[in-house]
Amino acid sequence: MILCDIGNTTVDIFENGIRNKYFIIDFDPLVFQNDVYFISVNKMLSEQLKSYAHWHNLENFIDRTQYYSTMGIDRIMVCEAIDDGVVVDAGSAITVDCVQQGEYGGGFIALGLKAAQEGYAKLSPALDVSFNFEVDLAKMAKNTPDAISLGFLAPLIEKIKNLGKPIYLCGGDAQILHHWLPDAKVDEELIFKGMIKLINKGITC
Amino acid sequence: MILCDIGNTTVDIFENGIRNKYFIIDFDPLVFQNDVYFISVNKMLSEQLKSYAHWHNLENFIDRTQYYSTMGIDRIMVCEAIDDGVVVDAGSAITVDCVQQGEYGGGFIALGLKAAQEGYAKLSPALDVSFNFEVDLAKMAKNTPDAISLGFLAPLIEKIKNLGKPIYLCGGDAQILHHWLPDAKVDEELIFKGMIKLINKGITC
Repeated sequence: MILCDIGNTTVDIFENGIRNKYFIIDFDPLVFQNDVYFISVNKMLSEQLKSYAHWHNLENFIDRTQYYSTMGIDRIMVCEAIDDGVVVDAGSAITVDCVQQGEYGGGFIALGLKAAQEGYAKLSPALDVSFNFEVDLAKMAKNTPDAISLGFLAPLIEKIKNLGKPIYLCGGDAQILHHWLPDAKVDEELIFKGMIKLINKGITC
Repeated sequence: MILCDIGNTTVDIFENGIRNKYFIIDFDPLVFQNDVYFISVNKMLSEQLKSYAHWHNLENFIDRTQYYSTMGIDRIMVCEAIDDGVVVDAGSAITVDCVQQGEYGGGFIALGLKAAQEGYAKLSPALDVSFNFEVDLAKMAKNTPDAISLGFLAPLIEKIKNLGKPIYLCGGDAQILHHWLPDAKVDEELIFKGMIKLINKGITC
């Protein structure tokens, strides 16, 4: 089974436990002869793939009633992967979503680490400093790098912890957040696990 | 006594309980004949004011040992205003600072509401929506405006509450945050109160 996560600039292929990333401009869907199950935030490519019978859009497998209409398909898919817990997908945004006994329980969206740092930098040259990823979130800060690191990270990490559920971390910045959420399970393949679970559900329905 | 808070674009004058704001380009310090006590983040104007004997820079009255070297003078001044509690100054950034028995206890800096919204808007057109200032922070969100409002506000408000101290709110967005911090004392003149306290301390020293 070939799984495919299509973004706006890259395409992530998962086949037999191996992951390959392509730039969208280099990507030719016709290279794949077997069935491919995909999710896509790229409308143009999604349209094109409608013509290929062996490309299956997993959007059509989702029970949309439990999610909200504007919720991103990638966010839905990581929620599909778990039965109970909190999924923290730390990418350009940090999405935090609750799942209870297989039902979506709502969530929230924080800025991603890069976006937050850019926000501070834009406010003032004095705040254009890098986050201190070693900062002690339990102490109030007495220097600028710690003050912005704490200001962004401490409230967010505390909020996630206070949800009181098992935490699943994925996305490009998962390892960074893992430092403050040591009990969380980092799973870079969560999105593909959600896809597999959905496919199996769809087939058995 | 005339008090003056000089920013990069505006000058805030406080005299006999009345506050007047001027654009810096329209501002002529020589109009004031009496003693003026000021703070300034505007280096050029601070330099110019050194020539006027009746303009007193309150920077020189501060015990800098208890603050950190890059800490903004406006942030220091609101801390000087209180003896015990948390000062939340909600402006272009939201600074949160602890004071314990008159001693600075450290703090942190979050993005301001406008900066946060701009951050979301920059991430994706789908997140370019206004915050919902009526959002219930206790519930997880199931629509985009609530998801970003919650993502920014819920962690921050919870963190501030969890500091477990009396809260003083000032800055342009104080009233907005007051909605979720109803026990906080909103005091738009906190910066001037800090200045007065510092002047009185300086004189009696």
